[in-house]
This record gives sequence, structure tokens and C-alpha cells, in this order.
Amino acid sequence: MTNKELLTIIKVGGKIVEEENTLKQLLLDFSNIKGKKILVHGGGRSATKIAEHLGIESKMVDGRRITDEQTLQVVTMVYGGLVNKNIVARLQAIGIDALGLTGADMDIIRSEKRPVKDIDYGFVGDVKQVNTKALSSLLDDNITPILAPLTHDGKGSMLNTNADTIASETAQALSKMYDVVLIYCFEKKGVLMDEKDDNSVISVINKENFIEYKNKGIIQGGMIPKLENAFNSIEEGVKEVIIAQATDLQNKYGTKIIK
Amino acid sequence: MTNKELLTIIKVGGKIVEEENTLKQLLLDFSNIKGKKILVHGGGRSATKIAEHLGIESKMVDGRRITDEQTLQVVTMVYGGLVNKNIVARLQAIGIDALGLTGADMDIIRSEKRPVKDIDYGFVGDVKQVNTKALSSLLDDNITPILAPLTHDGKGSMLNTNADTIASETAQALSKMYDVVLIYCFEKKGVLMDEKDDNSVISVINKENFIEYKNKGIIQGGMIPKLENAFNSIEEGVKEVIIAQATDLQNKYGTKIIK
Repeated sequence: MTNKELLTIIKVGGKIVEEENTLKQLLLDFSNIKGKKILVHGGGRSATKIAEHLGIESKMVDGRRITDEQTLQVVTMVYGGLVNKNIVARLQAIGIDALGLTGADMDIIRSEKRPVKDIDYGFVGDVKQVNTKALSSLLDDNITPILAPLTHDGKGSMLNTNADTIASETAQALSKMYDVVLIYCFEKKGVLMDEKDDNSVISVINKENFIEYKNKGIIQGGMIPKLENAFNSIEEGVKEVIIAQATDLQNKYGTKIIK
Repeated sequence: MTNKELLTIIKVGGKIVEEENTLKQLLLDFSNIKGKKILVHGGGRSATKIAEHLGIESKMVDGRRITDEQTLQVVTMVYGGLVNKNIVARLQAIGIDALGLTGADMDIIRSEKRPVKDIDYGFVGDVKQVNTKALSSLLDDNITPILAPLTHDGKGSMLNTNADTIASETAQALSKMYDVVLIYCFEKKGVLMDEKDDNSVISVINKENFIEYKNKGIIQGGMIPKLENAFNSIEEGVKEVIIAQATDLQNKYGTKIIK
């Protein structure tokens, strides 16, 4: 039992925020969540589309974007401007006092340019520090932060940072002050026992189950890093992590990750 | 005599913020201004360039951009993302706790889509309301707002709003709470008696002088709306309006507009 206040952090991928119908429903559901909340959004599809129109090739390695200088400009525009402000304006229209933020704004998330090992990811930032004081001060003023997947290095450069990571790092840092529930919105109903059966959602999973399912090949591919990220968050103090379909945001159906 | 606190509002045009050397100096000078401050920036040149790359034609009438739906997306990206976040990251690097804002963020500036008369300006917003409570609360927390020339209509749409207007409306609204000094950064040293002589700066000008100089043709062209805007600000409670060269920000040389 704790007497910390509840904080809900929702992460939504590009697919949901970039399509009119799904975005509208998502924002309505988000606005109905009681208490303090933060929205973290992606925007990769828009970035790829705009980069293409600008004649900039999007290079991906294992689903991660290689961020050269031109691409950094594109993601700064698209994530920090186009996608973020569209969400903010729409939330304001339904009564949520939203504030769009990149990591640079109020020094919310400082990162370090990823060192070059096998792959040079370019202007990609690994999170170093989340400004919990600034975020909690906003939350206390009933402001709802809308975080774009961008950080800064404290030396004047923006950096591109994965939205899942932003959500997880923010959740971990704020779990010292709040009981944090972190919900990853997903295109499926949750983690499935059978990929082909949408109704085979695993309702609760602990680390032991995860290892077992992974060994048996039930959980595979992109689900593995997502769940590793989720377990990492739980181990670092986040109270509850849920992987759910965006349309089930209200009911919190989906897969609950526990210790 | 008042016992209100000083607030300096600086407006810089696109030309200064879009060129590396002038931007660097401007931000250094801005960071050295004592006390509470707000920066309002433009970004029209970048918007035009990116629109061009995207194959979107920039239509201008009397120097004002016609903002169709695609152009609104471009200015939202460029002003709210690219230009704004570049300034914010750089100010953070020199110790200023900057926060980039459009009118939608924290409902800072609400506007109304300009009614169609002779010209349909498209998604252009005329300022209706400045949220002085939210802005002063940020200023009290030692946060420096960096305002992009974008507003919102409160119904979910972003709108394009001229940066001079954003600066002037914000200065007027905040003059109830602060002694506001509004500085328009300009490519010349101030308002000139002789256009061709850079050293013919008019150091102080009141409304009477303005009318006289205008009638004599000494002040003409784009300077007229700029000064009308400045006199309007002074009449609405702004303590001091200065038109100065960006490089003279520290010394506040230039033309002082008085009642």
C-alpha cells in the first residue's frame, strides 16, 4: 500500500495518431482517464512520408530509423510540430489543458547521442535524465504533458528518441513520486498465445511466464523487446504496465505485466 | 511610477532565426537580458522553402501568406517544430529554461479564423484571448516562453498568426501584470529619417511625429503598419516599444515609440 497519487502514462504509436478516426477515439478515451496523465506519441509514418516528399531517403535498421542531419530536421518538424500540435489543439477542444513538449522544452528529457558501435544511428539520443520536478510541477497545475519522441543533448542539439523508450523512462523516473500505470497502445488486443487468434490474449504475465513463452516460441519477434522494456519498467518501480488495444484504453483490457 | 515587475518581449523575424550566425548572436543577447522575458519568432523563409520542396505553392497577398490546408500543415511543422525547437534547444544549452509554445499549448493564445471579406486568407487566426494566467505562472517559475506564430481556435484547429501580432497582443495582455518593454528586432538600426542613410535613426517618436513624418513621406511602406502596431501597443498599456537592430538588443539602441 502506498499513498502516492495515481499517474497514467499512455503511449500511442504513429498508426493511431496519424489516422483521423483512430486519433479521434483515442483522444476521447484519453480525455476520460481520471486523474493525472501524460500522453507519449510516435509519428514515424508521417515522418517517412514527408521525408519522401522532400527527397530524403528513410533508412531503417531493425525497425529503427537512422537519423542523419536532414532526417533530424524532418522528425523535429513532424514529431514536435505537425503531430504534436495537432494532438494538443484537439485535446484543448475537448477540455484537456494539454501542453506539447519535446525533451528540450523545460529540459524535460536530456539524452546523449548514441555512441557508434556496429551501426551509426546518427542523431539518436539515449535518455540520461528525466526532469521529474518540471513534469510534476506541470501535473500539479492540471496541465497534461503531450510528449513527442524527441530529446536534446543539453549542448544545443535535438535528438531522435524512440517513443516506447520515452514512455518507459518517464514512467520509471516519475514512479518515485506517483503510482504510475503505463499503457502501451497496441494494434492487437494484447500479447497473444496464438498470433492468429485475436481472442487468445494473455491477461496477466510475469517474468517467469515471459521466459517460458519466449522459450516455447509463443512470444517472438517485435514483442520480445516490447515486453523486455515493460519488465524493465516494472522492475524500476512502475506499478503496472499494460499492453492493450487503443480502443480498449478505457477498460484497460489487454495484457497486464506484473513482477 | 508603478511597482510592477519588468517583462521584456523580443520579436525576431525569420531572417535572423534562420541564419546560423545571426541566430547565435541573437540568442546570446537574449540570454543576457535581465529579468523575465519572452521570445516571439517568425520563420516564413523556412516555411516557404519547405513548402517549395514539398511542391506546395506559397501564395502571398501584401506580404501576408494565404494559408490553405496544406500550408497550415507546413507552418505548423516549421514554426512549431523546426524553428521553435531549434531555438529552445540552443537556449537550454546556454542556461535559459526555455519552453516552446504555440497558442494551443496551455491554451496560451486563442484566435478566430479570419472572416472572408475581399481576400480569403484561409487558416489565419485573429487573436481573441491571451492566457495571461498561464504565461505569468510560467514566468514566475523562471521559465522563458518561446512563442511560435501559431494560435488555435479552441475547436481543434491550429491557425497561422503573424508574429508581430503575437508579440503585440501578448505585450498588451501582459501589461496589466508587468511593465512590458516590447522590442521588435529589425534589419535596420531603427526607423530612419533617410532610408538610404543607416545612421539617420529617429531615436524617439510619438504619435504626432509619426503622423507628420507619414504625411511628409519620410515614413512609408511596410514601416507604416509596423509603427501603427507599435502605437497601438503603447496605447493599450505597453510601457515601451522599441524598433531596433537585432545586434543592438543589449543596448536597446533604435527607435523608441512613446505616447
